[in-house]
Amino acid sequence: MPVREMIDAYPAEINLDRGMIADAVQATIECAQTCTACADACLSEDQLEQLRKCIRSDLDCADICGTTARVLSRHTGYDANITRAQLQACIQACHSCGEECEAHAGKHEHCRICAQTCRRCAEVCQSLLEQIS
Amino acid sequence: MPVREMIDAYPAEINLDRGMIADAVQATIECAQTCTACADACLSEDQLEQLRKCIRSDLDCADICGTTARVLSRHTGYDANITRAQLQACIQACHSCGEECEAHAGKHEHCRICAQTCRRCAEVCQSLLEQIS
Amino acid sequence: MPVREMIDAYPAEINLDRGMIADAVQATIECAQTCTACADACLSEDQLEQLRKCIRSDLDCADICGTTARVLSRHTGYDANITRAQLQACIQACHSCGEECEAHAGKHEHCRICAQTCRRCAEVCQSLLEQIS
Amino acid sequence: MPVREMIDAYPAEINLDRGMIADAVQATIECAQTCTACADACLSEDQLEQLRKCIRSDLDCADICGTTARVLSRHTGYDANITRAQLQACIQACHSCGEECEAHAGKHEHCRICAQTCRRCAEVCQSLLEQIS
Repeated sequence: MPVREMIDAYPAEINLDRGMIADAVQATIECAQTCTACADACLSEDQLEQLRKCIRSDLDCADICGTTARVLSRHTGYDANITRAQLQACIQACHSCGEECEAHAGKHEHCRICAQTCRRCAEVCQSLLEQIS
Repeated sequence: MPVREMIDAYPAEINLDRGMIADAVQATIECAQTCTACADACLSEDQLEQLRKCIRSDLDCADICGTTARVLSRHTGYDANITRAQLQACIQACHSCGEECEAHAGKHEHCRICAQTCRRCAEVCQSLLEQIS
Repeated sequence: MPVREMIDAYPAEINLDRGMIADAVQATIECAQTCTACADACLSEDQLEQLRKCIRSDLDCADICGTTARVLSRHTGYDANITRAQLQACIQACHSCGEECEAHAGKHEHCRICAQTCRRCAEVCQSLLEQIS
Repeated sequence: MPVREMIDAYPAEINLDRGMIADAVQATIECAQTCTACADACLSEDQLEQLRKCIRSDLDCADICGTTARVLSRHTGYDANITRAQLQACIQACHSCGEECEAHAGKHEHCRICAQTCRRCAEVCQSLLEQIS
């Protein structure tokens, strides 16, 4: 993904560390796709009734991570308050979804991968959040 | 919009007041569309250089409100922590965008309408947030 | 929704009829929300296994209608080819989802409302598509 | 990105070639992010007035590619008609946006990268489209 090249091609100043932004954009995009795929894989499982909450948290986490990726991909007219609040929502969604997927990780490989992706996304977003004064 | 009919057709319990959820879904959807249209209208203005920050906050607010509308449209496997965090991000985005649009409201009718829509959305989301323990 | 006011506040020429665009924006936004809510309501039904395909088509239709609403909300740098292709995708998604929801309309009120919303959205988008040379 | 691992963890049959789907999901996600970043980079350029159409096509292409990535990430209840129509819209958006960005590629590195990403995305989606009967 040309995430870092695009950040380096940005023609003005950026208030945050470019490498950390690139990592967070990459992690949130990855998490959004993984959650979308996990919701769909759950939908094809035999014991679907046990996966209601998992599908729901996948859908929320996909939407929230996708929006966070977009906010972090913009640098013009930077507003720390928006970035901070959206990062916090993203970390929360990744915690909740990661925990829910973890509960099914022993049975479903897609939940195992998704739990891991959510955890990693929460960590990367937390590191970036700590840079925002 | 059949927002309220869909909430009334939901087959299980809902943890929050159905009327307040319907209002918040309606307000966030409205705000997402208005911000998308305001960014595009700004893009056609003569003095485009003065609207850089306005376009950016419109784009963020559109994405954040759109995602909030989706989170609020789901009731299965409700997680108060996700709803709370996303509502907070939404209120912040609406405050920032509403303030930026307000600064151009005298010159541009689309910014005037957008500022008003953002303020209303922030209020409705704040009321819902206060219901979440 | 201030859809029409925002179109009237657009500062340049618009290639299509403003009333028809406003109707299509309204219909696609409505359909996106209804499909998101229908997928979630299905997820709480007792006979969830019979609703797998319905949930999937709801999710696709919500995404496609939401993107179509955004494309139709922009007028700057209009490209008929993009608008036409996205409207065609939207009409197809609404047909498929409307048909699938219709099959469950007798049992589930949310599917009945959703089928109706999809049909109306397909019609409104078809009318707009016919205006695009 | 664990795109391919998630496809391999899908518990049921998939109608299309798994490798080609993974490539298309990867390409559309990449293109959505690059277009979002290009629109924002354009917004900070000195000669912003010359980039109005470029920003608009970036925004459309980001939304359309993002939705296409989601549709392609789902396999349950597969409907060839929806996949085909959304792929066609995606190819069109990538052609239009790639051409527009190409016109600014000599001046702006972000437009050069974006044009290249759009072209690659159109090609990968075209290959997948040809597999759908």
